[in-house]
Amino acid sequence: MTAARPRPRRTRPLPFSERAFHEWARRRLPAGRAATLPLGDDTAAIPLGEGRVALLTTDALVEGIHFPADAPPAAVGEAVAAASLSDIAAKGGQPLALLVDLLIPANTPPRWAQQVTLGAERAMARFGAHLVGGDTKPAPRRSVVGTVLGIAPAGRLVPRSAGRPGDVLAVTGAVGRGGWASLHWGERHRARGREAAELVRIRPRVREGQRLARRAHAMLDTSDGLAEAAHLLAAASHLKVILESTRLPLHPGLVRERPSETRKPSLAFFGGDYELLAALPASAVGAARRALLPLGCPFTVVGRLERGRGAWIDDGRRRRRLPRAGWQPFVSFEN
Amino acid sequence: MTAARPRPRRTRPLPFSERAFHEWARRRLPAGRAATLPLGDDTAAIPLGEGRVALLTTDALVEGIHFPADAPPAAVGEAVAAASLSDIAAKGGQPLALLVDLLIPANTPPRWAQQVTLGAERAMARFGAHLVGGDTKPAPRRSVVGTVLGIAPAGRLVPRSAGRPGDVLAVTGAVGRGGWASLHWGERHRARGREAAELVRIRPRVREGQRLARRAHAMLDTSDGLAEAAHLLAAASHLKVILESTRLPLHPGLVRERPSETRKPSLAFFGGDYELLAALPASAVGAARRALLPLGCPFTVVGRLERGRGAWIDDGRRRRRLPRAGWQPFVSFEN
Repeated sequence: MTAARPRPRRTRPLPFSERAFHEWARRRLPAGRAATLPLGDDTAAIPLGEGRVALLTTDALVEGIHFPADAPPAAVGEAVAAASLSDIAAKGGQPLALLVDLLIPANTPPRWAQQVTLGAERAMARFGAHLVGGDTKPAPRRSVVGTVLGIAPAGRLVPRSAGRPGDVLAVTGAVGRGGWASLHWGERHRARGREAAELVRIRPRVREGQRLARRAHAMLDTSDGLAEAAHLLAAASHLKVILESTRLPLHPGLVRERPSETRKPSLAFFGGDYELLAALPASAVGAARRALLPLGCPFTVVGRLERGRGAWIDDGRRRRRLPRAGWQPFVSFEN
Repeated sequence: MTAARPRPRRTRPLPFSERAFHEWARRRLPAGRAATLPLGDDTAAIPLGEGRVALLTTDALVEGIHFPADAPPAAVGEAVAAASLSDIAAKGGQPLALLVDLLIPANTPPRWAQQVTLGAERAMARFGAHLVGGDTKPAPRRSVVGTVLGIAPAGRLVPRSAGRPGDVLAVTGAVGRGGWASLHWGERHRARGREAAELVRIRPRVREGQRLARRAHAMLDTSDGLAEAAHLLAAASHLKVILESTRLPLHPGLVRERPSETRKPSLAFFGGDYELLAALPASAVGAARRALLPLGCPFTVVGRLERGRGAWIDDGRRRRRLPRAGWQPFVSFEN
């Protein structure tokens, strides 16, 4: 008779790491090594010849994670278009067309699909672009995938990687819309009509991006939070990012809620802001601000780039490492 | 006391109708009314100027519906790329780039996502194109969405709608691969390795499409089955399609299985073939065949276009209406 074998220890699988997957793809795929814009830049740039590049970017929204089950479907359609429009904006591109994939239970009312479609079309039409096609497939839970094609002059693409030491960092609009929305996320099943719509509303900075592209060295959107954008910019540009906490233009909703001082940073950095973070010479800020003025868009200096590594936050008294406090979909989902 | 009210009759909701949704979108969306290729052509064409159009098309695959849970992930990646490549092929386009959205449970092993990615890249690389980006999001069940960007000369787009009376209809490759695969669909949980891979394998006819585009009046792929393609072509071209059942080049797998004569048509028409159905003048068939010869691709005349309406099948003795026997994802899912 043999002794009982020790039972193998069951380990809980780690949540899928999007960041590790991106790293892997960058190393492993030809496009990661050779593309005009690196993989992980959220927008792919495909040379078309004649000084132009096609921009291609996609975002997926899943019911119960990115939108409440009772969110107005038109708002979901707007959001899925706007998420990709925001990536096109960060490259200074002009959107041309959107495809939408609807993965939906077979008993989904036609009206739901139609309203998503109309919302997405409305978001595109603001920029002279249109919803031109898609796919519908049965699935156990509703998901909506949007893919936007844009176009940009090849010489004016603004990568994440070309920030320079001495550049200032400035952000369009306000910081913390996503954090504010997250405060109400627990109430999502009660949210109705305008309130639910506001929870998923995104205003992509397409025209702002086109105007900033002429002046910025590096640019990206803040869809995973300003902190995450700062980290990504620092890593891609091989520089140190310093954000000044006292200069952050907080979203009015967040100011109204008066979160505690401890909680404020995590809300400000939560994600879902869809603003643009640009690195540009201090001397160009005035012109950039004037260019954005007719669009009614504030442009606030929130920090600077220095030689060094990592992302830091300075409250005027001391400087601390900036936590990667942004929205991490797989981790958030797991908890 | 009032009489008991009759209980409202509970009606089971109808399965979502993809066809009705397409009809609605064609009427309702600006792109449906004005696009270079009509919505529902499976591929959108966006004018780029300088005599070129961008082609944009997307396909979603859902676990348990379009691929078995234990399908090799590289085969799933190949399939999602190939499904969209097949739509680009039907327009005679050149694929440029692919985006892949992975909607996956948070505990998905990184290797699964990596293998899907490598499979998709492999499918693209065959045509000098690449996987250039995508998105990953948590979801209760795995779905993979692929979107392909292609390019084509503006003057040589082959719509579904330009078939002419007197044209012959010819199909690349063989008919019934999808039907054959469906015979083994019930065994999907036992299918492993090469067999499971074959169940989801698709060989897009990209080079064939480019060569046929110069000669065909109308073209589309047979991804929902030859019968569905015939119906779509008839409706779009406002003509009558006649298929000759004795001329169908059946897939070797289907021939090997020897299905009953009654069952054969439904299997031949099941869908998932990803061949090209072209309408072209009889005088052009020889040249088309010679153009496809170096690619090792058969090109078989299976019918013709006449004035009239609808799709018919002729077995040499009598002519019957061709049932819409193709793959209807929402109906199949509901059953």
